[in-house]
Amino acid sequence: MVKKLIPLSEVYRLLEPGPVVLVTTCFKNETNVMAMSWHMMIDFVPPLVGCVMSDQNYSYRLLESSGECVLNIPTVELIHTVVGVGNCSGETCNKFEKFHLTQEPASQVKAPLLKECYVNLECKVIDTSLVKKYGLFILEVVKGWVRTTRKRPLTIHHCGKGNFVVDGKMMKLPSEKL
Amino acid sequence: MVKKLIPLSEVYRLLEPGPVVLVTTCFKNETNVMAMSWHMMIDFVPPLVGCVMSDQNYSYRLLESSGECVLNIPTVELIHTVVGVGNCSGETCNKFEKFHLTQEPASQVKAPLLKECYVNLECKVIDTSLVKKYGLFILEVVKGWVRTTRKRPLTIHHCGKGNFVVDGKMMKLPSEKL
Repeated sequence: MVKKLIPLSEVYRLLEPGPVVLVTTCFKNETNVMAMSWHMMIDFVPPLVGCVMSDQNYSYRLLESSGECVLNIPTVELIHTVVGVGNCSGETCNKFEKFHLTQEPASQVKAPLLKECYVNLECKVIDTSLVKKYGLFILEVVKGWVRTTRKRPLTIHHCGKGNFVVDGKMMKLPSEKL
Repeated sequence: MVKKLIPLSEVYRLLEPGPVVLVTTCFKNETNVMAMSWHMMIDFVPPLVGCVMSDQNYSYRLLESSGECVLNIPTVELIHTVVGVGNCSGETCNKFEKFHLTQEPASQVKAPLLKECYVNLECKVIDTSLVKKYGLFILEVVKGWVRTTRKRPLTIHHCGKGNFVVDGKMMKLPSEKL
């Protein structure tokens, strides 16, 4: 499946609806992937994103050490993969192999793009002032890729305890704003 | 419609799927409501929530001055109200009157609960260290109310430029985690 660059000014339209993302990280020869729902947009251009990661997560150390990650947005077809990734640790298994996730090289960061996800956002950590207190990282999206499909794919939203809500119908309303 | 207290440990299940919220604020004799999608969970208990508000918003000043707000979660039936609220400023009109939103008293904060919303989360600002730089407030949910209905209502997720995705089907998968 072919992907194209997404204009950085359009990134917020993918993240602000609150989809589960798969975060890839890489530091030296260690690479990992985790599921995450605790993220939000902070600014439009450049696109800034806040996200929260527990210091109990293996990915926390990789993100803190490397200062880079990729936010990959999966579609509903990957829901079992997302739950699998969210229920084991990269410290004890190679999650890419276990869940058949294909790594592709990113252009601005060392963390890999996940081929199976319809969006990949290459990010650099730009503010760590609230990392110690809340695990809150502020990321800048430096490059974004999106699959070239005609219609918007269905993403999933975590509601806790293994419950997800899948995207339903789209509604377009007149708006004067972004 | 009757509402009941929601255990604070369950609040994350309502916010992490990324619904649009209506934020009410009150400072002295000024009260306002705005639509917001830029929020995320930061911790489970007590429930901490990050949210971003532009200093161009009237609500920004009320939130900063009062240190309190209510996050009200609307259902899809209120989508036209949400868009209306998001497209005008409380500086030039009374949005409660204009959009027929009913204020009810909260128990812990001065900002009102919106009767028409199925969830109301009373919040206090607990950290303002990134407000000046990013408009990022950290809130603690001190009390939460949810409508007593059997099934989960449909929330809406903003995708920019007046496009919304409505909750679709629910999927429950085995999970070892929260």
